[in-house]
Amino acid sequence: MDREDTLKRLKSIEGHVRGVARMVENDAYCIDLLRQIQAIQAALNKVSAKVLDDHLHSCLITAIRGEDPDERERVLKEISEVYEMTIKV
Amino acid sequence: MDREDTLKRLKSIEGHVRGVARMVENDAYCIDLLRQIQAIQAALNKVSAKVLDDHLHSCLITAIRGEDPDERERVLKEISEVYEMTIKV
Amino acid sequence: MDREDTLKRLKSIEGHVRGVARMVENDAYCIDLLRQIQAIQAALNKVSAKVLDDHLHSCLITAIRGEDPDERERVLKEISEVYEMTIKV
Amino acid sequence: MDREDTLKRLKSIEGHVRGVARMVENDAYCIDLLRQIQAIQAALNKVSAKVLDDHLHSCLITAIRGEDPDERERVLKEISEVYEMTIKV
Repeated sequence: MDREDTLKRLKSIEGHVRGVARMVENDAYCIDLLRQIQAIQAALNKVSAKVLDDHLHSCLITAIRGEDPDERERVLKEISEVYEMTIKV
Repeated sequence: MDREDTLKRLKSIEGHVRGVARMVENDAYCIDLLRQIQAIQAALNKVSAKVLDDHLHSCLITAIRGEDPDERERVLKEISEVYEMTIKV
Repeated sequence: MDREDTLKRLKSIEGHVRGVARMVENDAYCIDLLRQIQAIQAALNKVSAKVLDDHLHSCLITAIRGEDPDERERVLKEISEVYEMTIKV
Repeated sequence: MDREDTLKRLKSIEGHVRGVARMVENDAYCIDLLRQIQAIQAALNKVSAKVLDDHLHSCLITAIRGEDPDERERVLKEISEVYEMTIKV
């Protein structure tokens, strides 16, 4: 169900990207292009936030409750890395 | 020519979004999804940077050299707004 | 006057950073620290937006109306670069 | 020890903000101001990344291993929220 929602969002983002390509072909105003691209990025961010939330509620819980300290460390490190990549100025 | 390059990039981004959808369908690992979405965001950023650069070299120059102070102010304000939207935490 | 406003904002940001240091010393909750740091980032973004806006309305106009194409290109390139650094994922 | 490192970073960021204020007083070039502000933001991001990493390795592990499902949900939700605030376009 959640997966269906994510797929629907990605489908819509794909169409949005195609729409921006059409705008480029029709010589749309640059600033309008930039605004549409920002809207696509906001939509992608929502997908990312959803995917991370799922991850925290599944893999992360499993890893932290599991017996393997290396696996736990690996999962925590991945989350830190994703966060660092996200905030990099 | 520049337009061709932008269209090619958007085409590739569209394919990338479709690829992420396939990954979701195939239950890919969450962190791999996040990394692919970040790659798409980086590709969109490159398109944005290119579009802004074109804008600065065309509409902006025309507006600043033109006789209409309102038009000039409008164009400068748009650039400020795009920048503000981009940096908003 | 604008300069006074910018200086006041920077003064307040400096105090905010000091406040976060005190929170660290008092073992504040990590998430509260993160929220305060995000507030500082937002305040810095406002200063940046203001500085860029000033720049567009002064140096940029001068450069574009000036006779020196190299100087004009330099100024446009700087703005593109600042934008690219800002949006980099 | 980690706390000492964080405090040292915050001290240095505070000095950096003061340096930007001095640049403003001395009418520094706008683009140089923007670059310095971006450097400060990058330094703040490093502090954030460190704080989040600490949080994942302490409070999060405690909450997930604890008996209280509400507390666990609260901690996971906070992390999701911090991430969402961070990526907001």
